Amino acid sequence: MSGHSPELDRNAPAVVVGTGLIGTSIALALRAAGIPVWLADTDPQALAAAAASGAGEAETRQPGTAERPVGGAAEDLAVSLVVVAVPPDSVAAVVGARLARHPQAVVTDVSSVKSLPLRRLMSGPAALDRYVGGHPMAGSERSGPEAARADLFAGRPWAVTPHPQSRPSAIAAVHRLAHLAGAVPVTLDADGHDAAVAAVSHLPHVAAAVVAAQLADAAGPVLALTGQGLRDVTRIAAGRPDLWAQILSANAAPLRDGIRRLRDGLDEFLQALDATALGAPDGRARLTRLLQRGADGTARLPGRHGSEQEQLEWLGVVVDDRPGQLARLFAAVDAVGVNIAEVRLDHRAGQAVGQVDLGLTPEAVPLLARALGEVGWTVHTGAGGGSD
Amino acid sequence: MSGHSPELDRNAPAVVVGTGLIGTSIALALRAAGIPVWLADTDPQALAAAAASGAGEAETRQPGTAERPVGGAAEDLAVSLVVVAVPPDSVAAVVGARLARHPQAVVTDVSSVKSLPLRRLMSGPAALDRYVGGHPMAGSERSGPEAARADLFAGRPWAVTPHPQSRPSAIAAVHRLAHLAGAVPVTLDADGHDAAVAAVSHLPHVAAAVVAAQLADAAGPVLALTGQGLRDVTRIAAGRPDLWAQILSANAAPLRDGIRRLRDGLDEFLQALDATALGAPDGRARLTRLLQRGADGTARLPGRHGSEQEQLEWLGVVVDDRPGQLARLFAAVDAVGVNIAEVRLDHRAGQAVGQVDLGLTPEAVPLLARALGEVGWTVHTGAGGGSD
Repeated sequence: MSGHSPELDRNAPAVVVGTGLIGTSIALALRAAGIPVWLADTDPQALAAAAASGAGEAETRQPGTAERPVGGAAEDLAVSLVVVAVPPDSVAAVVGARLARHPQAVVTDVSSVKSLPLRRLMSGPAALDRYVGGHPMAGSERSGPEAARADLFAGRPWAVTPHPQSRPSAIAAVHRLAHLAGAVPVTLDADGHDAAVAAVSHLPHVAAAVVAAQLADAAGPVLALTGQGLRDVTRIAAGRPDLWAQILSANAAPLRDGIRRLRDGLDEFLQALDATALGAPDGRARLTRLLQRGADGTARLPGRHGSEQEQLEWLGVVVDDRPGQLARLFAAVDAVGVNIAEVRLDHRAGQAVGQVDLGLTPEAVPLLARALGEVGWTVHTGAGGGSD
Repeated sequence: MSGHSPELDRNAPAVVVGTGLIGTSIALALRAAGIPVWLADTDPQALAAAAASGAGEAETRQPGTAERPVGGAAEDLAVSLVVVAVPPDSVAAVVGARLARHPQAVVTDVSSVKSLPLRRLMSGPAALDRYVGGHPMAGSERSGPEAARADLFAGRPWAVTPHPQSRPSAIAAVHRLAHLAGAVPVTLDADGHDAAVAAVSHLPHVAAAVVAAQLADAAGPVLALTGQGLRDVTRIAAGRPDLWAQILSANAAPLRDGIRRLRDGLDEFLQALDATALGAPDGRARLTRLLQRGADGTARLPGRHGSEQEQLEWLGVVVDDRPGQLARLFAAVDAVGVNIAEVRLDHRAGQAVGQVDLGLTPEAVPLLARALGEVGWTVHTGAGGGSD
């Protein structure tokens, strides 16, 4: 590729700035594709760990042992891709500096919020035609280069967020980076991205935190009645409060709009319950409509394989506490040749597991129920995923 | 037991009114303990299905073929226990009628809301010393006698809700019923019960519905970015809107209080985000505190086995798309002798499964990671349960 059409070049080196989980995983994916990688991090330990894991060479060294002259023009000119994987507050400064330092390179970043760094870059001196934002949705609660892996993004969405000045060839290069990591590129503008992650990630986190906070001073008998439904609704609220405070504050504007809509939704439930309590004839119908809207929303979630919605049905299988039961069960399932979309272990008092609920496509349920029943398993169709 | 101390008597018959899922399951558990059961239902088909499943004899017939005289004093006097498993709107009327008809019997019900039927009974003519409310938390989304099973309540909480007039021996009888079904009795008064289920079941359902409703008209790219976190938060919102409208409206008072607290919690997030956006120095600290409160709430949820909180850690195991991989994996897990608390299938694009995340006690993670690694599995500690 010529310097006028910067693209992902398998012979030219890439630079990864920031060797945490995401940066190091991208570096490993680049290395796995045979692309030379230079690594940079302000933390020498993280840098050394990433280099030791095979993610590339530290930027300050030549391959070999001699010090590499930082800012050496020839090396900097050769770079075709820079991936900036630093905390949100530093993204704009690092992207700007790298655009200046590597005049042939496409520069992208991986931060989970896109508008704020773009606005900062827009108000800076750098030409932004070679910058295209990105956000690989790794879905991991881990951190650090030790946790990195080349396949972290396999099958995951990777948001690509061009802006009006982005060159088409730079956009194409970031798409190729996503493909190289096994991810599925999803193109959005920065505001659209931030609104989307507010809706699918940040707002659910706030809702889970607010529901979970109600439990903080709940009495023992209240907690004794909890089931899987409450566990599911509140699970993500267990995430690191300091980290989530950074994420939420970086995406404050769309998140505030979303929280207001949630509050309006709660007000509609309050009004419908008031109408019901007052004996208004349409109270229950209003409640039903609000609940139907929620059910409609869940029906729009993408299916297991990122494609269309897949309606799961549940088959419950009674297992006892003997070792080997799960292995026996899955061996029996394999013999039928049915795909399992979800598994829930239904724990009973005093037992490790009491029932295994298997999430299946509707057609598979009677098939598997009959086959498991024939080899001696006690099955219950329609079980699982329940709340009371 | 004498007529003056009504208790669960293994020789005297029990009556189960309402042969849906819950009533028929209780009848099956009573039959399994050798107790004679008479069944009643306004729907002759449901009644016939329950009787055919071995849950007891239809109340209108003698054992054998002759018609049993309804209201025959001797048979009605012999009854020691009546379980009323009818829809919430009918509970008070049926409980009152059965208290009058069976003067030796303890009468209990199983409805998911307790204060409203109790208030109705209090304003009626019946003496209530032999009535004690109950609510077995079956955690099933199923319905109908065909789905019934004697072990439906095994290891589940069974709320027992005495009122000030309940005789101690009647309370003891309902506790014994719960134990007989394998459940764990949890004693609460009716208001305490309704507040508890509002907090652990009805309020999370409303929150899930309101979050899910935001997705009802979300654009395609927004949905493309969804992950497991959003799926978990919204899952219960898929429940039947008409059924949930009944449940929520029967528990309107504590639910409205809970919704107002949720709304206050959202307002606190809004204010903290406003403070952050305005650059207030304590904005981020306020956000962190709110998120910490949510994390503290999740830490109070009971552990797998109904006892103290159990902190799960996750081990990710890479599996490919070949058949037999889940069976092979669980066989390897069994060989290590480690208990699995949760299983999540982590689907990747174009594959049935890409990774299996196993929820374990923290001590078990390094043990299993090493053992699986030694027999060739690729494992990632700290994986799973993630959101991004």
